[in-house]
Amino acid sequence: MFQLLDFIGTFVFAVSGVLTALNKKLDLFGVFIIAFVTALGGGTLRDILIGRTPVGWMQNLQYVYLIVIGFIIAVVFRKKLDRLRISMFLFDTIGLGIFTLIGLEKGIEKGLHPIICIALGTITATFGGVIRDILCNEIPVIFRREIYATVCLLGGVLFFILQECNINDDALYLITSLFMIILRLLAVRNKWYLPTLHHKV
Amino acid sequence: MFQLLDFIGTFVFAVSGVLTALNKKLDLFGVFIIAFVTALGGGTLRDILIGRTPVGWMQNLQYVYLIVIGFIIAVVFRKKLDRLRISMFLFDTIGLGIFTLIGLEKGIEKGLHPIICIALGTITATFGGVIRDILCNEIPVIFRREIYATVCLLGGVLFFILQECNINDDALYLITSLFMIILRLLAVRNKWYLPTLHHKV
Amino acid sequence: MFQLLDFIGTFVFAVSGVLTALNKKLDLFGVFIIAFVTALGGGTLRDILIGRTPVGWMQNLQYVYLIVIGFIIAVVFRKKLDRLRISMFLFDTIGLGIFTLIGLEKGIEKGLHPIICIALGTITATFGGVIRDILCNEIPVIFRREIYATVCLLGGVLFFILQECNINDDALYLITSLFMIILRLLAVRNKWYLPTLHHKV
Repeated sequence: MFQLLDFIGTFVFAVSGVLTALNKKLDLFGVFIIAFVTALGGGTLRDILIGRTPVGWMQNLQYVYLIVIGFIIAVVFRKKLDRLRISMFLFDTIGLGIFTLIGLEKGIEKGLHPIICIALGTITATFGGVIRDILCNEIPVIFRREIYATVCLLGGVLFFILQECNINDDALYLITSLFMIILRLLAVRNKWYLPTLHHKV
Repeated sequence: MFQLLDFIGTFVFAVSGVLTALNKKLDLFGVFIIAFVTALGGGTLRDILIGRTPVGWMQNLQYVYLIVIGFIIAVVFRKKLDRLRISMFLFDTIGLGIFTLIGLEKGIEKGLHPIICIALGTITATFGGVIRDILCNEIPVIFRREIYATVCLLGGVLFFILQECNINDDALYLITSLFMIILRLLAVRNKWYLPTLHHKV
Repeated sequence: MFQLLDFIGTFVFAVSGVLTALNKKLDLFGVFIIAFVTALGGGTLRDILIGRTPVGWMQNLQYVYLIVIGFIIAVVFRKKLDRLRISMFLFDTIGLGIFTLIGLEKGIEKGLHPIICIALGTITATFGGVIRDILCNEIPVIFRREIYATVCLLGGVLFFILQECNINDDALYLITSLFMIILRLLAVRNKWYLPTLHHKV
């Protein structure tokens, strides 16, 4: 189940990467790289930071195949995908939750401090988008007007609180991911943003 | 021979990095970093991804010296290098082929899957330019209008097909690199580009 | 003493990251990431390049706490910090010297060649700012009009010259860091810049 959701997350992130890249007049190779980076960039950065090399996707080709499939589908059906915007958003939100949990897990495996694990969860879920935006020559969208990363951080905090309570693993993963998914949906619905600070001299 | 071509590739990539940086009003340090990154950025990223650290150029200073020499020559003779544009392009194309083969080799050494090895070859040959463009605040040129990366990918595929046929190593390297060099020359001569997709809603 | 200065350097770099980010209309999360990256990005890149993973700050949370404190202070007192511009600049310069020495040390620990150690010192001191500028979608300021990196390079050269002279470690660190601090102050006071090359065809 967990694995399946991870695959769905990867696939959806790849599709959303294609849709972003299509607005940038890139060629097919460029679009593919953006799709790849959106889906696997966060996990790749996490693996590099903790020294888990060769990085994950080099040892499990299923992720690469999924991105190729997502890439092809998104390119072929690019005009129809607009109608699926709401389903896409839902999958993207599920991906956010799953990717955060996977990042948390990798940190725990390495015996790192909970704060670092939460950071790794957030990096896994958000830095694919950050690298995508850098490659597309834009200030990363999650630095500007999103509560995206905050959802990961809060989800990570909840994870460790629940773990302290000794609840079983299945419930732990289920509650944490549902919390993140619902929080994100509420945030988007109610337009919750982090404040933007202005620096007036 | 292989080593010599690798050195030529590094040198030429450094020179081409200088020429790119000169259009950007950078100071000497900035120009040097761009030259360095153009020449060694792809291999550095490859080494980081597969966990081959300290990364290559830290263990073989000849690459660093070559870039310093390339940097000095390019800065001093920058006005005359325009006349050498065709020779430069030829060396750059040779560098492309060699760098791809080197990336393939490092992947094979690590026992990675052929698809990952091809990705590593392509990263080695192209991501120096990608990092250069990011540092210069531009969308990477190979994402927009180049068949550059495609040449690496096809060269990598040919490499593994030939290897399956059990031909000897010398012939394998020679044929694969000649194939990439000729393909690139044909692509530029005949203006073969990958299609650019537009996303009309 | 050394440790204390390292902490001061980290803190000041975090504050200066906040001040840069405030001009970019980022939200609080974006500002925090920019502060983090400015303070720890150089050391993180260095650790990744030499394979010292999990990277430094993951194993010593004091750096993370310092950045959080620096972030909060800078955000709360952002309007008053302008008056402290000179003190800030002084601390930033001290940070530059300290970070260079720390980078040198990590390279020596790994048994790398002095030239590579000097490169690592420079990367530690300057690439936090480079990554910050990339995330903010600007050409890195140290590539354009700063003698910043040159100070690190010269400091590194002096370090190895003094080491050859067999002076004791305390004097070695003190002289090298004072040299870099004074050189930087002189450079800013007298507006010493590296030449910018223009490429006229």
